[in-house]
Amino acid sequence: MITSTSNAQVKELSRLKKKSRARDQEGVFLVEGPRMAEELFGDADWRGRIKKVYLSEGYVQKAGAKLSGLDAVCRVEILSDAVFSHVSDTKTPQGILAIVRRREHCMEEILGRGRSPHVMILDNLQDPGNMGTIFRTAEAAGATGILLSRDCVDVYNPKVIRSTMGAVFRVPFLYVEDLPLAVSSLKEKGLRVYAAHLEGERFYDEADYRGGTAFLIGNEGNGLREEAARCADCRIKIPMEGRAESLNAAVAAALLMYETCRQRRNG
Amino acid sequence: MITSTSNAQVKELSRLKKKSRARDQEGVFLVEGPRMAEELFGDADWRGRIKKVYLSEGYVQKAGAKLSGLDAVCRVEILSDAVFSHVSDTKTPQGILAIVRRREHCMEEILGRGRSPHVMILDNLQDPGNMGTIFRTAEAAGATGILLSRDCVDVYNPKVIRSTMGAVFRVPFLYVEDLPLAVSSLKEKGLRVYAAHLEGERFYDEADYRGGTAFLIGNEGNGLREEAARCADCRIKIPMEGRAESLNAAVAAALLMYETCRQRRNG
Repeated sequence: MITSTSNAQVKELSRLKKKSRARDQEGVFLVEGPRMAEELFGDADWRGRIKKVYLSEGYVQKAGAKLSGLDAVCRVEILSDAVFSHVSDTKTPQGILAIVRRREHCMEEILGRGRSPHVMILDNLQDPGNMGTIFRTAEAAGATGILLSRDCVDVYNPKVIRSTMGAVFRVPFLYVEDLPLAVSSLKEKGLRVYAAHLEGERFYDEADYRGGTAFLIGNEGNGLREEAARCADCRIKIPMEGRAESLNAAVAAALLMYETCRQRRNG
Repeated sequence: MITSTSNAQVKELSRLKKKSRARDQEGVFLVEGPRMAEELFGDADWRGRIKKVYLSEGYVQKAGAKLSGLDAVCRVEILSDAVFSHVSDTKTPQGILAIVRRREHCMEEILGRGRSPHVMILDNLQDPGNMGTIFRTAEAAGATGILLSRDCVDVYNPKVIRSTMGAVFRVPFLYVEDLPLAVSSLKEKGLRVYAAHLEGERFYDEADYRGGTAFLIGNEGNGLREEAARCADCRIKIPMEGRAESLNAAVAAALLMYETCRQRRNG
């Protein structure tokens, strides 16, 4: 059992928690909590990607027999409760944390591999909770994938991972260097690209999303950048009453994804 | 200028920030940041409810002439930047904070005073960000008001206030002691009450929300309590693909509010 925060593995875990560059360099991310761990172990491909699992002493005592056989599946290390708290990203650590190798996605996966493409394109989205919620909603609404501008919050940020509620394991995503170029390539593939915009030409429920569709969503505070909005085929707006100036980005994304889902469901 | 955190006013601000009971006893809440302050000053009734405004030294230097006349409208106190940071609820304090007297709402306001009622009923909702986002979306979607079970997170929690983006000043809300009783009274007034439920009898877009409508939304982790769900006229579900088990509570609420908005807009 590791009982010191100056242990090399503990230092490495802290580094992976805090620094997106460290996670990028190692090609890994951290997955915390029993619910998320269950998702990992329940999927053969993800299970094979677990590099190591860290358990707190308290968790081992509580989980007991449930953990038998775990060390046959992957490498396991026990941390004292204090050390586990130190590496945990949550206020009330739940005692299980895994280092997991990333899965890379290609554009073909984002486009749904034969399903009718339904792509979310996120431009400079910054809030980890919003990012996680968009992944979670994307899975539920049947979106085929997510494209992200390079300056979006890191999907592998522990807060994002947690708020995806597991959707990050199943929704393909891809960071793109040049967002306008990526949008052009979607248009060449026959997708209609809609920009969610306060000055939209029409309401979001007046367009037809049954064919290949992509939606551009902008930053929480500043909305969509003009160079991104300009790439869209059409600007759509969500009607707003009262003195509301905008909607939360994850809410706006959800409304567009579920409108697509509704139209496709109702033919 | 106040330069010590042991000053009585500073202690009182900290208490109001941290303790919902202290806020309840005084019948006040805290409003922080220039954007939210603008909303306060822009509304005659709210302006009259400002008890005192606290400014950081840095903010006074930066805002300069913009603040002239402020002390004719309300009492103003300057805090050193360090003391302001101490009372602020944010990591990067923006230098303006007001103590504001609450406005009480009645059931008639929740029902829209003659508009077709569109009420959100929140049962044990706990996350401040979700609560704020529901207020923000409610204003934009034209919901008439919000009912809350007594054990929901405090709407006057500074994090909730902030994430409403000002909607808390305009969307009527009411805590109720007995949620099932409140639901019954809505039904007596002719509203149809729908419970968002994983085991809904029909999809959320298959019911007619053009008449008086209320939606029951449950807790983030546990969903709607059975004693609350039982009061509804009908259980509705939001379709979910993939392995998604549920949606974020604010996302689910948004989909229902905007479906209502869509139906009413399209007649």
